[in-house]
Amino acid sequence: MKKVLIYGLGLMGGSIALTAKKKTPDCTIHGLTKSSQEKRQAIKLGIANTVYTEQEFLQQNIWNNYDLIIYCLPVNLICQKISEIPNHYRGFVTDIGSSKKKIVAAIEESFATQEHNYYSSHPMAGSEHTGCQFAIDTLFEEKLCIMTPPKGVRELAKEEITKFWNRLGMQTVEIKTEAHDEVLAYLSHSPHIISSILVNWSEENKMVRKYSKDSPLPLTGGGFRDMSRIAGSNPEMWDAIINSNQESIYDSLLDFRDRLSSVIRSLEKQQPDKYWQNFFASSQKKRREILKLPSFPQK
Amino acid sequence: MKKVLIYGLGLMGGSIALTAKKKTPDCTIHGLTKSSQEKRQAIKLGIANTVYTEQEFLQQNIWNNYDLIIYCLPVNLICQKISEIPNHYRGFVTDIGSSKKKIVAAIEESFATQEHNYYSSHPMAGSEHTGCQFAIDTLFEEKLCIMTPPKGVRELAKEEITKFWNRLGMQTVEIKTEAHDEVLAYLSHSPHIISSILVNWSEENKMVRKYSKDSPLPLTGGGFRDMSRIAGSNPEMWDAIINSNQESIYDSLLDFRDRLSSVIRSLEKQQPDKYWQNFFASSQKKRREILKLPSFPQK
Repeated sequence: MKKVLIYGLGLMGGSIALTAKKKTPDCTIHGLTKSSQEKRQAIKLGIANTVYTEQEFLQQNIWNNYDLIIYCLPVNLICQKISEIPNHYRGFVTDIGSSKKKIVAAIEESFATQEHNYYSSHPMAGSEHTGCQFAIDTLFEEKLCIMTPPKGVRELAKEEITKFWNRLGMQTVEIKTEAHDEVLAYLSHSPHIISSILVNWSEENKMVRKYSKDSPLPLTGGGFRDMSRIAGSNPEMWDAIINSNQESIYDSLLDFRDRLSSVIRSLEKQQPDKYWQNFFASSQKKRREILKLPSFPQK
Repeated sequence: MKKVLIYGLGLMGGSIALTAKKKTPDCTIHGLTKSSQEKRQAIKLGIANTVYTEQEFLQQNIWNNYDLIIYCLPVNLICQKISEIPNHYRGFVTDIGSSKKKIVAAIEESFATQEHNYYSSHPMAGSEHTGCQFAIDTLFEEKLCIMTPPKGVRELAKEEITKFWNRLGMQTVEIKTEAHDEVLAYLSHSPHIISSILVNWSEENKMVRKYSKDSPLPLTGGGFRDMSRIAGSNPEMWDAIINSNQESIYDSLLDFRDRLSSVIRSLEKQQPDKYWQNFFASSQKKRREILKLPSFPQK
């Protein structure tokens, strides 16, 4: 891979560009922006070797200048762009969409029964910020990238795209479309909704409002701050994620509500000694498992 | 204040001791541990100037050696210790309990109608770790300490205890018992339960389990990791917090469930354009308000 095109230079696209510039110095990194204002900003920040607006790129029709194109856009836009990939394009393609059902459907529709070079990706990295001014070249270090294969993808494309992410510092695991979207509903999409509900719920409490106003510092401790962090993320991107994985999110939130109801019932009466201690000890243990932490924390 | 006794050298007590050693070099900092094993560890780590076991302290009956005693124990134990403060003790007293109804009731019962020197505290700082091996001397920098006055507390006690926390780097705000416990249910206690439910809910999902096992790294992104952090906290301490603020937590979780149910209803059908974008934009804004962040994030 000698020439890579990052299609969309937001926080994620910008961070991929910066990281690739550092870690794959044999590649030239080009980037596309929506507007010329964004183009000026990306150039000023030195995000990529060359920056075009999307319009400039499409007018020049220079698809085959690139060995790899990475769509770094909200899910709905990725789906739209897939249908615009010209038949004559011979390079590899991927995206960084957070849900896969709609993207993989668009790929399979676009390439019909032909073999193709599109292997979909989901780097498990990000931040609550929006825009390439927040891009950093360390975002992907030791992170996981989940790979999702559409029907018809060539083995070579899988190998080359995987290798590219590896060079940026990520390890990969392959998870198929349906499973990806169910897993992500639990580990990202619904937690995002829960974080947003948490913020609304507490900020609208009268006592919280009153004393928050009176306090010289936020009333919140580190726990709340951490739990509310992702409620600060890009609303437009998350709108697209919810719309593209509505069913799995719905199912997972029903499951969450059942568990919440069970806790509420437990709070209706005094519980036996150590009831809550056992409840918290169990989730403490499960947390270590899901985060693959050692059983006993080391200092 | 020349001599301070930290009653309990866990993560919080240990961090207060370390910070006071650094920031109030004119004070001598003594600490109490439950066992002689913990005493050896605290001495080895240099947590305080002198360390006793609780038994040694009680046998020597040296209460009036101290100008300030700070109870750094789970809420139920703080309540128990309050009844053991001897009538002849003349110094100041506080604690760092996370809920106040039971503590303030114990103080008011203990001192009956007399004036006294007990001003209850709640430093809004901590970590998911347990034990004085995780104590740090920067835990309280620029943090808030919520102060709760029991009936009969002398003005001088309020001033002196406030000054002590200020010297450790904290700012204070006074919030009365009932309001404190309602606010904390929203900003700490119920979020803690939600974080624990989140971990159980996701870890018990079959797909999450299966692919988590297959993956070289945790499947979780930064959002989930942050939201689950407090589910790693000390289960014994949190058992006591839930039992001491059950009613406010119960009420707040009913409110949370109503909001969750409303989101679930919205997911039952396709929503108009930008519905979720507006939902997330609103919580993004509320998050900035509750965390007192600037309206537009600065890099």
